[in-house]
Amino acid sequence: MSEIKALTFDVFGTVVDWRSGVAREAEAMLAPKGFERDWGAFADAWRARYQPAMAAVRKGERPFAVLDVLHRENLIELLAAEGIAGLSEAEIDHLNRAWHRLDPWPDVVAGLGRLKRRFVLATLSNGNVALLVAMARRAGLPWDAILGAEVSRAYKPLPEAYDSAARMLGLAPDECLMVAAHPSDLRAAAARGFRTAYIHRPLEFGPGHEAAWPAEGAFDYAFDDFGSLADALGTP
Amino acid sequence: MSEIKALTFDVFGTVVDWRSGVAREAEAMLAPKGFERDWGAFADAWRARYQPAMAAVRKGERPFAVLDVLHRENLIELLAAEGIAGLSEAEIDHLNRAWHRLDPWPDVVAGLGRLKRRFVLATLSNGNVALLVAMARRAGLPWDAILGAEVSRAYKPLPEAYDSAARMLGLAPDECLMVAAHPSDLRAAAARGFRTAYIHRPLEFGPGHEAAWPAEGAFDYAFDDFGSLADALGTP
Repeated sequence: MSEIKALTFDVFGTVVDWRSGVAREAEAMLAPKGFERDWGAFADAWRARYQPAMAAVRKGERPFAVLDVLHRENLIELLAAEGIAGLSEAEIDHLNRAWHRLDPWPDVVAGLGRLKRRFVLATLSNGNVALLVAMARRAGLPWDAILGAEVSRAYKPLPEAYDSAARMLGLAPDECLMVAAHPSDLRAAAARGFRTAYIHRPLEFGPGHEAAWPAEGAFDYAFDDFGSLADALGTP
Repeated sequence: MSEIKALTFDVFGTVVDWRSGVAREAEAMLAPKGFERDWGAFADAWRARYQPAMAAVRKGERPFAVLDVLHRENLIELLAAEGIAGLSEAEIDHLNRAWHRLDPWPDVVAGLGRLKRRFVLATLSNGNVALLVAMARRAGLPWDAILGAEVSRAYKPLPEAYDSAARMLGLAPDECLMVAAHPSDLRAAAARGFRTAYIHRPLEFGPGHEAAWPAEGAFDYAFDDFGSLADALGTP
């Protein structure tokens, strides 16, 4: 086995808590206008439109569009479906950038700080560069490089998303460790030769929707926080 | 005028002293093997092959190739021209990565630290991602994003190199300030709507080859260190 030289991270769900953050931002924008909703469910409904929107790009049914654009289209559809009207374009833009203002899970910043001492840390996210840069600056995420869909012009789990990240890092795939809370992402990375670390994030989809742990041995590592991963990789 | 939101940096010559670094690395590799050369001139000769190699890519005479690849081809030609033989492939690789191990000018790390408090900082370099990441980790350069030729698949001064950087940052071109020691780079950026900061690096090409200051008013800012730029932009 080659030595691991870089860690590549899924971001939404693995690094940041998108559901709480989107719910908080939607409530802050919409509750003062008199709208009352279950804002966690609002976040879920927005997120539910994410995979279908990317699928259209993956299949070539439309030209590549970055996630900020897909999120905004999905938001406009969601607001219509929810009967929420009267927002200005600037307000829609601001709410759309809720995805730029998500908080990391509590273990993330300290864990990344430890891991960075020894490994190159890169995003390998379907988020676009501007989104990931704004998030990193706000949350203090010390990425060495912002890689992912926009840079590779391929949404995960397409092979090119993983291949291009390893190539840009100048590494063989098995020198890269994909870190994600989603088995499907890890399986796609493993199929391209990456090593894999599953991170259990039971609250990603809200209380009562805990993901099951994957079968033992399904991935190279499986932990429920970045600190344990740093321990396992020997980064004090 | 829009507010400046991001600074995009030329790297070789503007941020790091490539000539001293390459000379140091070449001497460290080759002098113990009994080769005696003017190592500054060796660095100059390697660098002289840089623009012609990129020009072949820019003109479409060959497919896109990253700078590590062009540098290595140029190094092999240079070693042959210099009559330096007997290096292993691993030694050639190590010497080629001299460009990953360049030191910043003395004002850079402190200046970037100040500028980062207020502005997004991105490379806009013809260097590839792996090179710029390795350099940043070694030298402590706090980039928010590694942009440039590999990510845009266009070498400066092609318009797409600048256009794609602004697009990926989610900004209008005039919200971006191009920072470079080279008037040609700044003029190309300005032609795409960027604002411009000239940084005077008199020792880039070695003693006795000082660049002239550009005419007053040629660029939006002109200073001889990053600290003065931080002062002018109001970042204490």
